[in-house]
Amino acid sequence: MIKVGIIGVGTVGASVVQILKDNADVISARAGVDIVVKSGVVKNLNKERGLDITLTDNVDDILNDSEIDVVVELMGGVEEAFEVVKKALKSGKAVVTANKALLAYHRYELQSLANDIAFEYEASVAGGIPIINALRDGLSANHIESIVGIMNGTCNYMMTKMTNEGVAYDAILKESQELGYAEADPTFDVGGFDAAHKLLILASIAYGIDAKPEDILIEGIQNVTQDDITFAKEFGYAIKLLGIAKKDGNEVELRVHAALIRQEEMIAKIDGVMNGISVVGDKVGETLYYGPGAGGDATASAVVANIIDIARSGKSRPMLGFDRPMEGKLTLKAKQNIESKYYLRINVSDKTGVLAKITKVFEDNNISVETMLQRPALQNSANLLIATHVALEKDIQAMIKEIEALEFVNTKPVMIRIL
Amino acid sequence: MIKVGIIGVGTVGASVVQILKDNADVISARAGVDIVVKSGVVKNLNKERGLDITLTDNVDDILNDSEIDVVVELMGGVEEAFEVVKKALKSGKAVVTANKALLAYHRYELQSLANDIAFEYEASVAGGIPIINALRDGLSANHIESIVGIMNGTCNYMMTKMTNEGVAYDAILKESQELGYAEADPTFDVGGFDAAHKLLILASIAYGIDAKPEDILIEGIQNVTQDDITFAKEFGYAIKLLGIAKKDGNEVELRVHAALIRQEEMIAKIDGVMNGISVVGDKVGETLYYGPGAGGDATASAVVANIIDIARSGKSRPMLGFDRPMEGKLTLKAKQNIESKYYLRINVSDKTGVLAKITKVFEDNNISVETMLQRPALQNSANLLIATHVALEKDIQAMIKEIEALEFVNTKPVMIRIL
Repeated sequence: MIKVGIIGVGTVGASVVQILKDNADVISARAGVDIVVKSGVVKNLNKERGLDITLTDNVDDILNDSEIDVVVELMGGVEEAFEVVKKALKSGKAVVTANKALLAYHRYELQSLANDIAFEYEASVAGGIPIINALRDGLSANHIESIVGIMNGTCNYMMTKMTNEGVAYDAILKESQELGYAEADPTFDVGGFDAAHKLLILASIAYGIDAKPEDILIEGIQNVTQDDITFAKEFGYAIKLLGIAKKDGNEVELRVHAALIRQEEMIAKIDGVMNGISVVGDKVGETLYYGPGAGGDATASAVVANIIDIARSGKSRPMLGFDRPMEGKLTLKAKQNIESKYYLRINVSDKTGVLAKITKVFEDNNISVETMLQRPALQNSANLLIATHVALEKDIQAMIKEIEALEFVNTKPVMIRIL
Repeated sequence: MIKVGIIGVGTVGASVVQILKDNADVISARAGVDIVVKSGVVKNLNKERGLDITLTDNVDDILNDSEIDVVVELMGGVEEAFEVVKKALKSGKAVVTANKALLAYHRYELQSLANDIAFEYEASVAGGIPIINALRDGLSANHIESIVGIMNGTCNYMMTKMTNEGVAYDAILKESQELGYAEADPTFDVGGFDAAHKLLILASIAYGIDAKPEDILIEGIQNVTQDDITFAKEFGYAIKLLGIAKKDGNEVELRVHAALIRQEEMIAKIDGVMNGISVVGDKVGETLYYGPGAGGDATASAVVANIIDIARSGKSRPMLGFDRPMEGKLTLKAKQNIESKYYLRINVSDKTGVLAKITKVFEDNNISVETMLQRPALQNSANLLIATHVALEKDIQAMIKEIEALEFVNTKPVMIRIL
């Protein structure tokens, strides 16, 4: 019998308890042993939870319990969770976590602490989709060329609604908050930070690359308007918040931002709150993984799968996929060296000669225009909607500054990258 | 160092050798040891293959080689491969196979023979997609409610072409043969048998259910015409060859056939030679896995991943996912008890009163019509295109016989199930 202690019994924790009970028949048959939750840690012992496990508000009751084999960390946060998980590993307990922030900051330290102790974290990326499993084990024969993922259900829900129903950003954000898809302060989701945490985890498995959220390009969906959606549709694109990891020689680019993607791509077909991650391997080609990226039961499904795997195998496979480092290390590409096609929306006063002056700035910065549309906007202004050929990030940023300074440009130009 | 012997060095075998060489850097780093192919068995030693491994035409040179840790079986076929794999397991060698036919017939015997020896077979289903990995390990916390998969790239290529380009079945079959997607005798693919082998393997992992190809409903795409495609499009469906496993109480239905699927479903969006498998778990909901189902490199990607996993873990996870049987066993649902909606195409002489007589036969068999279209056809005949509400397979089969016997019905009615 495998005994489990859960630290943080909220929505996901309660689902873990429930799944181990509801599905005990298949779980025992698959694991070869029974798996039971012995106890759980909560902040408030007085709250009624309807769970028949022992509850405590002292984390040491689990960490010091020699009967507990597996600690499931669902408390969230970074530093406090890090301390708890370190203690669990030091006492020889296997650890399962769903905590993406913890891993975004401390995954390499945890790998080295875990060593031969099983440390699993399937639920930390894309909830119920077994993407860690696929990337670390299923695609291990490949050099990974790219990972392109819809890793945040809230943003995908909002983008889908804006596209299909023509709703404005503010209205759909409010609706998402009412539905419980977005937090009161939605920045963590709509600003791309949640997706960035997940991307960093996947990039470690694919490339063995250590980077922190501060090191990479992170932008959100806050500036996307119906003008952009209309332009995208007209030219055969969808707009999605993407996490992108891409190998280019000995460098890896890591970035999170809204992007225009060709509608024919499988990743463009993933709508609503669902997540989907496309992985291109040098040998296998493209594979894609689709499913629910959040929710108590879906996330707990991944947590329980990790516990079953620990029960089955005892020994852990290498936590981050690499059992020893490669000789030729990959490094993070500097943000300003990223190459992409770009879409720009520039609001200008509707005067003669404006178009010529704008296109001159493009030319001066060596940026070549692929498509341009001019649309009338409010108060005698016009929106210029422009798609460029491939350009360097630093050139685009410099050009945007130059354009913003022009007297007939009314607001800071909005830029969305094109995949 | 892990030493590998390959039995059957054809397209996939050569790709295995090549991947282990090309990607030795990531493979060694991920496995923690070097993996090298020591020798391979071929039928014809005189054929130039451009591979720097030792070749032999005697399988015992590998089976009796005490230096070889892992035997990769790529010879194909059923009984001869079974004997070879049994010998390898008896001598304590781990086995990796891509042989779906072998597993469709002998997987339970192999599981019991393998016992604690690693026996892996990721490449046997859907080529490069790590679906065995996902189903056996990633979704292990779930009761699997259904598996619906596009598991044959040839059929999917043909259906996609028929849908997008209006090409006739015979023309696209000929093109597929010229492109090398279909064999000279295409029955194994277009008749659904290839997909059935794969479905049986997945059904064992999901349900622990033992069945042979002979036990289940297998139909192909040979009767699909442009009339059916047009009807499907008009009512919002795509037509695909699907492998379906579905739990219904204590029974499991297993079936392979062409089916109409709502265009909004992710599985309907998978086009061309690609494979895709949708799995619904009771806790996780729907997840979907997409990628190349065939090809030397994609298949070898899965074979090499299995070898890496064996190098990493030593101990095998339970081969078919169940370490011990469940108490309440699931049984195979009899074909005639399968329930579905049905689409029928009935070619009738264009006479007064025919429609009334046909609909009377529907009524007599307790089959309720949902949609009906009548279209003029060749030689004073008409095609009746009919979609039914949910009905029993045995009722539909009885009704089709009755309809076929009517004097104004010109050919055997064509039936396609609706998902």
